[in-house]
Amino acid sequence: MADANVVQDRDHKFLTEAVGEAYKGVECGDGGPFGAVVVRNDEIVVSCHNMVLKNTDPTAHAEVTAIREACKKLNQIELADCEIYASCEPCPMCFGAIHLSRLKRLVYGAKAEAAIAIGFDDFIADALRGTAYYQKAHLEIKKADGNGAVIAEQKQSAVRERGAQREEVRSRPCFDDEVDDTRPQSHAAPEKTAAYHSYVLADFLIICCCWWINLPADQ
Amino acid sequence: MADANVVQDRDHKFLTEAVGEAYKGVECGDGGPFGAVVVRNDEIVVSCHNMVLKNTDPTAHAEVTAIREACKKLNQIELADCEIYASCEPCPMCFGAIHLSRLKRLVYGAKAEAAIAIGFDDFIADALRGTAYYQKAHLEIKKADGNGAVIAEQKQSAVRERGAQREEVRSRPCFDDEVDDTRPQSHAAPEKTAAYHSYVLADFLIICCCWWINLPADQ
Repeated sequence: MADANVVQDRDHKFLTEAVGEAYKGVECGDGGPFGAVVVRNDEIVVSCHNMVLKNTDPTAHAEVTAIREACKKLNQIELADCEIYASCEPCPMCFGAIHLSRLKRLVYGAKAEAAIAIGFDDFIADALRGTAYYQKAHLEIKKADGNGAVIAEQKQSAVRERGAQREEVRSRPCFDDEVDDTRPQSHAAPEKTAAYHSYVLADFLIICCCWWINLPADQ
Repeated sequence: MADANVVQDRDHKFLTEAVGEAYKGVECGDGGPFGAVVVRNDEIVVSCHNMVLKNTDPTAHAEVTAIREACKKLNQIELADCEIYASCEPCPMCFGAIHLSRLKRLVYGAKAEAAIAIGFDDFIADALRGTAYYQKAHLEIKKADGNGAVIAEQKQSAVRERGAQREEVRSRPCFDDEVDDTRPQSHAAPEKTAAYHSYVLADFLIICCCWWINLPADQ
């Protein structure tokens, strides 16, 4: 039980870092609301976010960017001694990259459906549910636990309801009034509770919401 | 019928370019034996090969590299007005990248099994055969036609037979004696026949063979 708590605390720490990266990416306008962190021996190797807009590169998802940067930093093609933490379930391209880089463990926060609900391509969800090869991969895959799923679902519904107002919202110069009031005021790690993953999952959806509302009208 | 011939000639031209890139990659030692070309309005935008070894980047497959370079060159995130020609069937990561970049057409040469037969990860073949979302994609996918499949199968068998001698072959300083004698002496487009795709498919397998034999023993 003590070991399980240690793993949970460790996962929480790095997943929080990945969510923090997603925030950074949205703040900078670099790309979509996604972050990823590569960890080796309990230390962060690289911490990256989606760079699609910044780099004019549709392959620059957070996970792919993190893998590229980690390989460069460690000067190795394979990351078999590393883990990856992603703020959201990776898309098939990113799963392919994770498989090819031989990462030994993946921990992700929000489910792909959370991103699909706010307008991302539904192919995202096909990686784990539509493809056979992931079952063959020598990779431990973990959906972050805790009771965050309930809160994530609530947030997801709220985001969905905003869908009808999308065009109207996009045309507004400021989106402060659209931001959920429950958004934490800082990125510091939250006080740990039995449901601390709620923070990570709810946070992800808020980031998505901010990003989506702030998206230029022609995107 | 005339139109079909025009399309076939056009496809042959660009597929030959992609295979030529695969050769270049092997000659330079930049990575695996794969090439890809992005085309817009009958003109080549970029012509790239696998850069995994050169860039220490497991995501630098030929297709991903070509998409990244094309987006950079055209200064656009989407390539909806472009086609991609790949020397071999793309892996799931590359298919994901092709989907995300909205390329309108994919033409590939050798089937994934040709690469699997010489030791590449069998997840390559799961892209078209194991994943649902490709059927949903607004993308025309074409396996190059012609009777090259027969010759490709013959070459594939030859490569398989060499499998048992792999470690022995790898330790040799030179691989000239292992190169198939039927390898064309130049990269110029071959004389067109009803079976001209044989050239492309057979060529791919020869490139694979050269690359594989030349691979460092510790890879």
